[in-house]
Amino acid sequence: MFNNADEESVTHPLLLLRSTSNTTSQVAIVGSNLCPIESLDYEIIENDFFKQDWRTRSKTQICQYLFMKWTLCFLVGIVVSLVGFTNNLAVENIAGIKFVVTSNMMLANKYLVAFVVFTAANFGLTLFASLITAYISPEAAGSGIPEVKAYLNGVDAPGIFSLRTLVVKIVGSISAVSSSLHIGKAGPMVHTGACVAALMGQGGSKKYRLTWRWLQYFKNDRDRRDLVTCGSAAGMAAAFRSPVGGVLFALEEMASWWRGALLWRAFFTTAVVAIVLRAFIDFCFTGKCGLFGTGGLIMFDVTSANISYHLEDVPPVFLLGIIGGILGSLYNFILDKVIRIYAIINEKGAAYKILLACSISIFTSGLLFGLPWLASCQACPADASEACPTIGRSGNYKKFQCPPGHYNDLASLIFNTNDDAIKNLFSKNTDSEFHWSSILIFFVTCFFLSIFSYGIVAPTGLFVPVILTGASYGRLVGMLIGSRSNLNHGLFAVLGSASLLGGSMRMTVSLCVVILEFTNNLLLLPLIMLVLLVSKTVGDVFNGNIYDLIMKLKGLPYLEAHAEPYMRQLTVSDVVTGPLQLFHGIEKVSNVVHVLRTTRHNGFPVIDEPPVTECPVLFGLVLRAHLVTLLKKKAFLPTAVPTGIDAFNQFTAGDFAKRGLGNGDKIEDIDLTEEEMEMFVDLHPFTNASPYTVVETMSLAKALILFREVGLRHMLVIPKISSRLPVVGILTRHDFMPEHILGVHPSLLKSRWKKLRIRFPPWEKIF
Amino acid sequence: MFNNADEESVTHPLLLLRSTSNTTSQVAIVGSNLCPIESLDYEIIENDFFKQDWRTRSKTQICQYLFMKWTLCFLVGIVVSLVGFTNNLAVENIAGIKFVVTSNMMLANKYLVAFVVFTAANFGLTLFASLITAYISPEAAGSGIPEVKAYLNGVDAPGIFSLRTLVVKIVGSISAVSSSLHIGKAGPMVHTGACVAALMGQGGSKKYRLTWRWLQYFKNDRDRRDLVTCGSAAGMAAAFRSPVGGVLFALEEMASWWRGALLWRAFFTTAVVAIVLRAFIDFCFTGKCGLFGTGGLIMFDVTSANISYHLEDVPPVFLLGIIGGILGSLYNFILDKVIRIYAIINEKGAAYKILLACSISIFTSGLLFGLPWLASCQACPADASEACPTIGRSGNYKKFQCPPGHYNDLASLIFNTNDDAIKNLFSKNTDSEFHWSSILIFFVTCFFLSIFSYGIVAPTGLFVPVILTGASYGRLVGMLIGSRSNLNHGLFAVLGSASLLGGSMRMTVSLCVVILEFTNNLLLLPLIMLVLLVSKTVGDVFNGNIYDLIMKLKGLPYLEAHAEPYMRQLTVSDVVTGPLQLFHGIEKVSNVVHVLRTTRHNGFPVIDEPPVTECPVLFGLVLRAHLVTLLKKKAFLPTAVPTGIDAFNQFTAGDFAKRGLGNGDKIEDIDLTEEEMEMFVDLHPFTNASPYTVVETMSLAKALILFREVGLRHMLVIPKISSRLPVVGILTRHDFMPEHILGVHPSLLKSRWKKLRIRFPPWEKIF
Repeated sequence: MFNNADEESVTHPLLLLRSTSNTTSQVAIVGSNLCPIESLDYEIIENDFFKQDWRTRSKTQICQYLFMKWTLCFLVGIVVSLVGFTNNLAVENIAGIKFVVTSNMMLANKYLVAFVVFTAANFGLTLFASLITAYISPEAAGSGIPEVKAYLNGVDAPGIFSLRTLVVKIVGSISAVSSSLHIGKAGPMVHTGACVAALMGQGGSKKYRLTWRWLQYFKNDRDRRDLVTCGSAAGMAAAFRSPVGGVLFALEEMASWWRGALLWRAFFTTAVVAIVLRAFIDFCFTGKCGLFGTGGLIMFDVTSANISYHLEDVPPVFLLGIIGGILGSLYNFILDKVIRIYAIINEKGAAYKILLACSISIFTSGLLFGLPWLASCQACPADASEACPTIGRSGNYKKFQCPPGHYNDLASLIFNTNDDAIKNLFSKNTDSEFHWSSILIFFVTCFFLSIFSYGIVAPTGLFVPVILTGASYGRLVGMLIGSRSNLNHGLFAVLGSASLLGGSMRMTVSLCVVILEFTNNLLLLPLIMLVLLVSKTVGDVFNGNIYDLIMKLKGLPYLEAHAEPYMRQLTVSDVVTGPLQLFHGIEKVSNVVHVLRTTRHNGFPVIDEPPVTECPVLFGLVLRAHLVTLLKKKAFLPTAVPTGIDAFNQFTAGDFAKRGLGNGDKIEDIDLTEEEMEMFVDLHPFTNASPYTVVETMSLAKALILFREVGLRHMLVIPKISSRLPVVGILTRHDFMPEHILGVHPSLLKSRWKKLRIRFPPWEKIF
Repeated sequence: MFNNADEESVTHPLLLLRSTSNTTSQVAIVGSNLCPIESLDYEIIENDFFKQDWRTRSKTQICQYLFMKWTLCFLVGIVVSLVGFTNNLAVENIAGIKFVVTSNMMLANKYLVAFVVFTAANFGLTLFASLITAYISPEAAGSGIPEVKAYLNGVDAPGIFSLRTLVVKIVGSISAVSSSLHIGKAGPMVHTGACVAALMGQGGSKKYRLTWRWLQYFKNDRDRRDLVTCGSAAGMAAAFRSPVGGVLFALEEMASWWRGALLWRAFFTTAVVAIVLRAFIDFCFTGKCGLFGTGGLIMFDVTSANISYHLEDVPPVFLLGIIGGILGSLYNFILDKVIRIYAIINEKGAAYKILLACSISIFTSGLLFGLPWLASCQACPADASEACPTIGRSGNYKKFQCPPGHYNDLASLIFNTNDDAIKNLFSKNTDSEFHWSSILIFFVTCFFLSIFSYGIVAPTGLFVPVILTGASYGRLVGMLIGSRSNLNHGLFAVLGSASLLGGSMRMTVSLCVVILEFTNNLLLLPLIMLVLLVSKTVGDVFNGNIYDLIMKLKGLPYLEAHAEPYMRQLTVSDVVTGPLQLFHGIEKVSNVVHVLRTTRHNGFPVIDEPPVTECPVLFGLVLRAHLVTLLKKKAFLPTAVPTGIDAFNQFTAGDFAKRGLGNGDKIEDIDLTEEEMEMFVDLHPFTNASPYTVVETMSLAKALILFREVGLRHMLVIPKISSRLPVVGILTRHDFMPEHILGVHPSLLKSRWKKLRIRFPPWEKIF
């Protein structure tokens, strides 16, 4: 049986790597989290010391707090939009120069040289990105959305919000996206936004002596969580220039706790982003941004003033949604398997990681350069709205190897930046521009390339690849339906993107608004809503949202809002068992040190027993971090007799403020003399005297609601009938994990209370 | 001191009517709620009986439940869009015919006859609306948004979701809006949507023998709340043809509890609304809908392909927001006072109510017909894009009394339906069409007319009047700024609407999306965000959101999510006092009857005492409704000895299902013999054995978080030190009301912990 171990170190035993997903405990398959994953505490800690501190806060301090709350959001908005703009500017220029140089060589018929230059440039950029990621900050690899989502759920993965990670994420993302890998920048932008917010809320850096008194109010989990939520909204807003979509994305996908006030603050942050970006674009229209401005800052304007569609267009859209849902869940399924395989390679060491990344880069370059040769050249249309063939970077008609007056339709998609390819696919009045075989080749390439590119050791996003894959899928369906529908192929591409996004990421309102904002056409709304609803519903039948799958692989214990049906069959006492570590109100120092050194628990119940009280009484809950601070300050008593509340003079609120992860003091660092070990410490003023408690007969489902809605880290279980001890156990996040519960009660695996979901057939095992 | 009275009947003692807003208890100023306001219970009730019932549910039943959940949302969407369309069709046709007839008379120079016909038609329509509202369903008066908002917060005002209310709301709204009163239809549509959803979730009607087994699953507060949330989203979506805005409105303004799954369901509902409305509009474009189609179903298409604005346009927009915020809070302030004055009149009886409504109607008709005479006629522009002057109903250039070739700009705004007036104000390229004096007259008229029209006894909305007032205010500012800004006056009108909406209703994201959806121009986004943020911030400095003010006047105990600072200074034991009513696990029938008859409490702690147990133990909480069912079924024991669980054979889950308000059994209706009174009843199987408890030393702020986040109706307070009784008291919604707390602890009124807000000066007293 499991004891009430909370926040155990979740490492990644290689032995368990190949186990199926029905592992009984939460195990990280990917990532190298050698530090423990910590839970966050959103409860109001009410101990005497904090109460006293709160009472002494003046009105000025409250105003400072309010002022800082908004100022930080403003600053987050400014910084994130700056980063977003820099990112776009850099990618457009680096990738742009690469394409211009290669195209010029091809114009001069130097195809081999062009290929070598193209591959070498991509290889160099990928190598750089994977080098800095692997050696400086492995936490910056991947999209970052799963980690931020877990953080907002109350799980602090180590190092995800460090300055190092931020820098690697920004530089690595620019470099990786420029290297023509089939990856996106939206995920990394969200992580960047969250990271900026978290760093700002950390109250400066103690290491670099940058601290400011006003920032001290944000040194707690609640305020930092709110700021990170705003930051992730800003990141999304900057990635797609979609301020409302960014807020909704943070609300629907990222945040686990949400309040009206937060909605407003997030909205403010993204408004700042929108206005700053607008100013930059105004500036770039003057032509001072190099190659930026022709394709930059994604904005697929598909406005056609009078799009008309009628009820008879609903069935094809419905079909598009169904297939999109199936494709999306298949995408998730394969991605999951590929990440597991990559994990085996990546575990072998940094060199292997980099090797993998470089192989993918060479493979990608080969495909991008080689595939267009499969497509036949097409004659330029007489009424083309732009120069045909296009010489240079963006544009619908790429010349590639074709003779003058002809263009290569596959090259227009494949030998281009992702943003430009999306723009080409979304364009209206281009129904005859692409041949169906080119679109098919492109779709298959995108689908698999994006799956194989995600898991490499570099900042990689999923949004843009999925949009691109979906757009080609939608065009293909549009071509098959042909003239039986009023909708043009560009519109089908938009709907195809929506369906694949819905089928893979399983968002609704936020995706809808993001797509509306970047296509800038509100009349599409009902069709996009329809396609998203259908594809999400179909996808949910097969598996979970892609970020949840990745989160599971990373071993992050995400707490769902919804209780599984079998949780109604269990009581809390069914999952809390094992020995319980308790402290007394006045405890011997050596006992405290012993318990802290021998367990990894982060919270301990404090009880008062006779003769202090008449009968055993639960006084409250004390946190490991606070105990360590007490020991460090050596606030000891010579005897087991309390001496009043002079504790308030010995400590300041700053002593107990939450540190960044890994920066907190450790019990191992504290040296105590023999004499001190024999002394006593009065825990009363530092014990949270009103923890939330549940009675042992409460069902797990009902306890989960309290745990999740209030955002707890520890929940005390009290006995139904008063017994010798006033507390039965402690529940933590891990006790609510389905893996844990099903491990303790394996019989539930077969019960009819499991989630209704179609499983893939047993050939799943071949992976 | 107050005892733990829960859900006291909140009637409206006339004596307290003139008291200031600092009344110590929650008192209804308006509305005639003679029935008690009931709280709703979103907690999972875990008694043995329900647990047994849950265990016996088959997989089929779970699937039925899932299927019904989505089917109901689908049906709500269909019905609400039907109602919305009918509403629009009727208003456009009734008001349209009225304007056409009057205009024709004026063309024939019969001005007096035209005035009489116009006034009589309006009078008749208003009279009809107020008659049915006053005599059939007074609950249908007003916007309905505050009541629905309170319901979703857990307060069930009597009669708001009855079939009667629904019918009166729909018919009354059509009639009142057609009567040229300065009121809107959005609020009534939201109420209608919520009402449709609530009726569908009620499981048919027992009275008319319409019950269906599948609907039984929805006979609980949680599922009904979710359905009502979707219904209110659908209502908003239908009112403005704004599906995403509808979802966000329900999320931001209406819902107090929200989950990801609900977002998805609400989105589905509004998608249905959008698609059905689209089909109807397609149909109406064929010209079979009478006068509908030229101006119906609000959609102010202000697309101008290349709206350009730059950073230098930000300051005027900022200014617009600041003044809008001040105007909005002033609007709320005056409206609040007018409603209080109207309440005095309305209290005198139905005849007075109708008289008030009719006077407002005559006054309005006089203004609408009289004011345009103040404006001078203007020559038609040579390059007018439409016929000038317009003969008939809609259009920019109303002829009114002007000679041929001229138009009356004030009449174009004032002698028109509200929708058309908004459309005219929002139009681009009309900078020279309106004279500033006309706009000023129109603004002042709108501002006050909408304030004086809201409180009458008819279904009245606030959205459209505020949009219209704001649009004229925006145009006025645009004219004053003139050519110093690049923005055209139509755009200023849109921004003005946004600023007044933000200043009065204090929403952000949802208003932003609603405005975007009905103006259909995404490029406006950053400016609208800016103006909303500024006006909401400015407005919040002065007073609360308009719906919260109305809710307060109606005496609905709305529970805020955010704890007031002084709540951190109080513990729960500071607010629970007074005698506590307890039951024993096996209780004498006469005791139960006595307590139920003499108190109005809705929940009672159940304890087991020696000799049943060793020491007193809190067994759980039993609800009044369940006790009444027990008494009605006469499931009694001859002696105080439990006889096992044969209770499960005597009852079905349907016996304990939640009834519609007022339909539940009452203790007064139950007759018991002397003999039965001497028997015993075993409460154990029907007692919620795991209620949420808090320790008496917990701060009120922390307890509020639990109460609010989990959605409780009763919260048990347990002692810190075990004493004779295992429970100290019960907390209910009313114990968390600031009015109650400040009444018990008046010293807090002067504390520095009160909300930071600028108060209006003492001349407030003159009202």
